[in-house]
Amino acid sequence: MWKIYKTDNMAKLIEEFQFCVESFHLDCTEHLSLSTLGNQMLNAAVRHAEPLGFGHKKLNDLGVTWVFSRLLIQMERYPREFDKYAIRTWIPSVSRYFTNRNFIIQDAEGSPIGYATSVWAMIDLATRQPVDITKLVPEYASAVVPPEEQPQCPVARTNRVRVTAEEPVYTFAPQFFDIDYNGHLNSIRAIEHFLNALPAEELRQHPVHRMEVAYSAEGKYHEPLGIYLSTGAEGEYAMEMRKADGTIACHCKVLL
Amino acid sequence: MWKIYKTDNMAKLIEEFQFCVESFHLDCTEHLSLSTLGNQMLNAAVRHAEPLGFGHKKLNDLGVTWVFSRLLIQMERYPREFDKYAIRTWIPSVSRYFTNRNFIIQDAEGSPIGYATSVWAMIDLATRQPVDITKLVPEYASAVVPPEEQPQCPVARTNRVRVTAEEPVYTFAPQFFDIDYNGHLNSIRAIEHFLNALPAEELRQHPVHRMEVAYSAEGKYHEPLGIYLSTGAEGEYAMEMRKADGTIACHCKVLL
Repeated sequence: MWKIYKTDNMAKLIEEFQFCVESFHLDCTEHLSLSTLGNQMLNAAVRHAEPLGFGHKKLNDLGVTWVFSRLLIQMERYPREFDKYAIRTWIPSVSRYFTNRNFIIQDAEGSPIGYATSVWAMIDLATRQPVDITKLVPEYASAVVPPEEQPQCPVARTNRVRVTAEEPVYTFAPQFFDIDYNGHLNSIRAIEHFLNALPAEELRQHPVHRMEVAYSAEGKYHEPLGIYLSTGAEGEYAMEMRKADGTIACHCKVLL
Repeated sequence: MWKIYKTDNMAKLIEEFQFCVESFHLDCTEHLSLSTLGNQMLNAAVRHAEPLGFGHKKLNDLGVTWVFSRLLIQMERYPREFDKYAIRTWIPSVSRYFTNRNFIIQDAEGSPIGYATSVWAMIDLATRQPVDITKLVPEYASAVVPPEEQPQCPVARTNRVRVTAEEPVYTFAPQFFDIDYNGHLNSIRAIEHFLNALPAEELRQHPVHRMEVAYSAEGKYHEPLGIYLSTGAEGEYAMEMRKADGTIACHCKVLL
């Protein structure tokens, strides 16, 4: 078991959140859907950040918000209906403009079934420009778990793959259920669209083993977006989500 | 408070399930999204049916499954981030080919903030044809709450409105994240697509007050579907989701 750190206000630096796979959290393979898992990871992140003093309500008062820069998730297996699972999360590091957050997904017995790392930036709500985290929220540094005390989070970072496709395999424009309060494409919905662009028969037979998503420009409500796909070695896919002018909104690599 | 009935195996005939609005359960208006609520209602239904002896695992062994025939939901207001809410559910009636299930959505204080009624059929997994519920599962009748003991569920059933539009306002083909195990369009995803077809600015300003959906034919993976819209009095919309040959997969009426 991990040692639990407590700050002055008793918030835990490494915290674990319990979940259960309900029937309508399943995908069509009858395993926990990756989008439900993604949302629960983000819910855990919010719940973890809140008592530490940098939940998004507090950030809102400061005129800033978190934006998702990168997510890398690696799953050995996915829980099934009525399975309990837990998400353990902590902050491994912070620099001026970025902070990381790691996750371990554990089965009912506490054994890891997946790991994830993520990178976040803090942006000014008005200008949408990055702000210096260490300056705006100096106490943030005290929430970082010292390296020697961090759980292992063995996810292999993949290499960026150039996508050479000239035609999109999938096009869409973010709709009401795709967007967040700011009218931008929700990060988990982006993942759903990326996976929707893959051959469904492949996904039905081979669950996503590793997925890396990097968000670079915000997709907007009703803005046409196209997903361009390059297929690598068996079960390996690289994709870019591009705007009409060619700007890359996000790119991702999937290994089934 | 409602009286709680118990059958021999102690399952409750009227049961209440507790939830909390997590950050990534919100829609872009920062209220609990109707699709998250819909999924939680279905999760509550499954959790309620399981100990009563007709959960879908048991039904699977019998070679049958539940299909959603109709859902009518009326919300006075939607909970917000971190709000607790409860879903109370029970079975008000059963006939040979259909059974009903009602829901009350309650705020943290137990006051109703919404109501829903639903109609379900039981179909043979192989033939996809309806089966006689009262014959296949005779004990089902004992799970029906006697009329005089039922909570009120005051949702007004709306009239069927003819949709006269000749061109769809929204087209899609169900993708990986839209489908269930059988490769059919998931009922809650159908609701998302219906609402996506409405003007988002209207939805941002006026939450869905009442929504009635009737499912008649199963939309299939990658099958092109179009949503045809007729606008009624202010805030009133009638829609049909049609297959390429004109067959109606489902229709719905929305009142904002």
